[in-house]
Amino acid sequence: MAARKKTSAIKKPPKHLLGIQNLSVQEAKQILKEAKEFISLNRSASKKLDTLRGKTQINLFFEPSTRTQSSFDLAGKRLGADVMTMNMSNSALKKGETLIDTAMTLNAMHPDLIVIRHQDSGAPNLLSQKVNCAVINAGDGTHEHPTQALLDSYTIREKTGKVKGKRIAIIGDITHSRVALSNIYSLQKLGAEVMLCGPSTLIPKHINNLNVKVENDIKKALKWCDVANVLRIQLERQKNKFFPSLREYSLYYGINKKLLDSINRNITIMHPGPINRGVEISSDVADSKNSIILDQVENGVAIRMAVMYLLSLNKNR
Amino acid sequence: MAARKKTSAIKKPPKHLLGIQNLSVQEAKQILKEAKEFISLNRSASKKLDTLRGKTQINLFFEPSTRTQSSFDLAGKRLGADVMTMNMSNSALKKGETLIDTAMTLNAMHPDLIVIRHQDSGAPNLLSQKVNCAVINAGDGTHEHPTQALLDSYTIREKTGKVKGKRIAIIGDITHSRVALSNIYSLQKLGAEVMLCGPSTLIPKHINNLNVKVENDIKKALKWCDVANVLRIQLERQKNKFFPSLREYSLYYGINKKLLDSINRNITIMHPGPINRGVEISSDVADSKNSIILDQVENGVAIRMAVMYLLSLNKNR
Amino acid sequence: MAARKKTSAIKKPPKHLLGIQNLSVQEAKQILKEAKEFISLNRSASKKLDTLRGKTQINLFFEPSTRTQSSFDLAGKRLGADVMTMNMSNSALKKGETLIDTAMTLNAMHPDLIVIRHQDSGAPNLLSQKVNCAVINAGDGTHEHPTQALLDSYTIREKTGKVKGKRIAIIGDITHSRVALSNIYSLQKLGAEVMLCGPSTLIPKHINNLNVKVENDIKKALKWCDVANVLRIQLERQKNKFFPSLREYSLYYGINKKLLDSINRNITIMHPGPINRGVEISSDVADSKNSIILDQVENGVAIRMAVMYLLSLNKNR
Repeated sequence: MAARKKTSAIKKPPKHLLGIQNLSVQEAKQILKEAKEFISLNRSASKKLDTLRGKTQINLFFEPSTRTQSSFDLAGKRLGADVMTMNMSNSALKKGETLIDTAMTLNAMHPDLIVIRHQDSGAPNLLSQKVNCAVINAGDGTHEHPTQALLDSYTIREKTGKVKGKRIAIIGDITHSRVALSNIYSLQKLGAEVMLCGPSTLIPKHINNLNVKVENDIKKALKWCDVANVLRIQLERQKNKFFPSLREYSLYYGINKKLLDSINRNITIMHPGPINRGVEISSDVADSKNSIILDQVENGVAIRMAVMYLLSLNKNR
Repeated sequence: MAARKKTSAIKKPPKHLLGIQNLSVQEAKQILKEAKEFISLNRSASKKLDTLRGKTQINLFFEPSTRTQSSFDLAGKRLGADVMTMNMSNSALKKGETLIDTAMTLNAMHPDLIVIRHQDSGAPNLLSQKVNCAVINAGDGTHEHPTQALLDSYTIREKTGKVKGKRIAIIGDITHSRVALSNIYSLQKLGAEVMLCGPSTLIPKHINNLNVKVENDIKKALKWCDVANVLRIQLERQKNKFFPSLREYSLYYGINKKLLDSINRNITIMHPGPINRGVEISSDVADSKNSIILDQVENGVAIRMAVMYLLSLNKNR
Repeated sequence: MAARKKTSAIKKPPKHLLGIQNLSVQEAKQILKEAKEFISLNRSASKKLDTLRGKTQINLFFEPSTRTQSSFDLAGKRLGADVMTMNMSNSALKKGETLIDTAMTLNAMHPDLIVIRHQDSGAPNLLSQKVNCAVINAGDGTHEHPTQALLDSYTIREKTGKVKGKRIAIIGDITHSRVALSNIYSLQKLGAEVMLCGPSTLIPKHINNLNVKVENDIKKALKWCDVANVLRIQLERQKNKFFPSLREYSLYYGINKKLLDSINRNITIMHPGPINRGVEISSDVADSKNSIILDQVENGVAIRMAVMYLLSLNKNR
């Protein structure tokens, strides 16, 4: 009924996906390559493989999530895995168990894969040192969100031909964004140039070490770039105020059609979602033909399937 | 192992199930006909088909629900679909995403079916215009709850022989009840007469347009009807008070054995659940041999399987 | 792909698992025996059977749970069942439905198994009288937690050779512990001697009827036992205070390396989890080589698979 996924000859499949920083260029490219086939599958009438049949995937979400959790959930089910999603934002903390104890407990149930989202940077890494199974970082604190960066790179390549040589401006709250950091690593590995743009209060001081351009003037950033990756203003994650008001942020850094028209350049628009319409992006941009926001979502499922598939090939556990 | 479901020859399967109002009589009858086979399946030792294998079903519940959500969940799993249930009562709203953005995001993940419950009337209709997959309305605001009406009609037919010519009294809070509205449409399409009974504050003024009888006197209503469909008093959904107290409501409109005995008529008792025992219905009625409340629940799973199966036959997506 | 589970010749498989008290010795031993095979399965590359394919399992959790719920969820999925987990701590109570109405509603959907955790002692028993399917008690009030006791007995046997003749001290809050009560029954049926140890405010007065030793002095208890089963201090379940402070409890009854070293005896350490590190048990004990806490978790999945499998053989429904 469903098409069978053939096992590609992978030299040395990675053990975990904790971040882009330590991923080799070859590994990143391999994931993008594998994703292609899964995109076709997801568009077909029957979206089910036996690739991970008999495997157990646990989604361990310490922060609430709609899209990332759904994407991993569907990816696992379509690959044939038994998927169990645990929303830990309440239950676990209530009983006061440590992350490591939770991890060791789940590990004793013999999962093959744990997908973890956690409010603390480094939590997935710590987890990976304690368990016997593959670990995928689905976003940790202000650190990394590797599958987001991979799906972003895939989508840029798909929609603009290639990543190499492209100029990507990442716009918004860089300081609190794991999406930004993972994208910097991913885009640079694949040969793109990266510029960060936002108010200086939202751009970390040490960021120059990463070999990126920094620009506070949104017009200059837009004039420079081929692709604008507009970050979400994550009000729920800001403990202090880094700008006076949403209205003021929107006035200076919000991307809208009038602003883009004034630049007169064909810029591809991305956003990791969920969108705050009228804040960091206006509807006439988010829904325009240059927007590839929904392609990002579509490709996200396939990228996650590709990652899960490749990790399952690692036999050193 | 499991019996295979044979594809019936359906002329033009519907694309969505958004309400009963726009369902043709033939479509309604087709759903009831298909349900029969699934009732047998659900009673058998092995309750699993491959009918929807490779398909993705998303249950998108913006209001909490126990029975409807469970019913759709089991229906999808027994048909072999990959089912993902999203409880949106907290998470989505927190991040401020619009319904349409949530819908478009999920749509990009290529579901084959979205089952939606939403507090706003019309939300499923709006959704269906935006997505490529089938949409089933699992209850929207005070508008419709079509699968409830279909399972009610099925159960009346099963337990009393036929719907045509039957007199059905719908008793309680008509104004806030999507169950009432869908039942009016469904019962009339299948040839029954409908009477609405409740305090005048809970019956909308315009309802006469729907060609129903209206009666404020519970005794007169019971004397008239063959079937009494007793609605739940939905305290959690009433923003203003439409009657002085539960005790007073119960005194004037609560269905109990003493009241029924005084009528001296063999009336079949229905209730969409969950029951407020001692409020709109007493235990000596809810648990009596004339009550078909649990048959409604049983038939609900089969009706939902029938709807999902029929929608999956529509190839115009 | 996956190994098939052969049907053992069971004389008279039990209908429900409501507690250990009424389980025969033969039934208990049968469950432990069956579990062994599932432990191997869970350690293998492909953890999926068709044993319960076509069966519906509902996890009905009125109290939040991480490990027990996960364990039952994975057990059911690995056996091939369709599993639906219902977290009832909020939703059901909100609408005011009684346990029996919830049960009858779910029963009408034709589950084959309901796994229930409930804050009231006796709830699973009540449920089992109302439904047509198998019922497993996953913890009820301060009554029983039978699968926990079975996995504890299995783990003692696995790690120390046998249960018969062993001396087991159960340490902590006996009064509020369903784990303690089920363990007493289970261990005595399998031939062990049981001692209860804790402050007298946390040991029920009638407990002597159960033919156990009672000891308030932790040193004496440790000097006596081969295995110490350290209970969790369940702060969330204590309505009144039974000891002055956590610090004081820890000082008198907390198990730590220094205390164990002073005993100079090779004691196997158990804990049902989740652990309050530094309260009832210190890290240098919980993580020591004598600790079999994670083995308990691993064996828990297999024990639950064994129970589900055996109950599914009962044809008198």
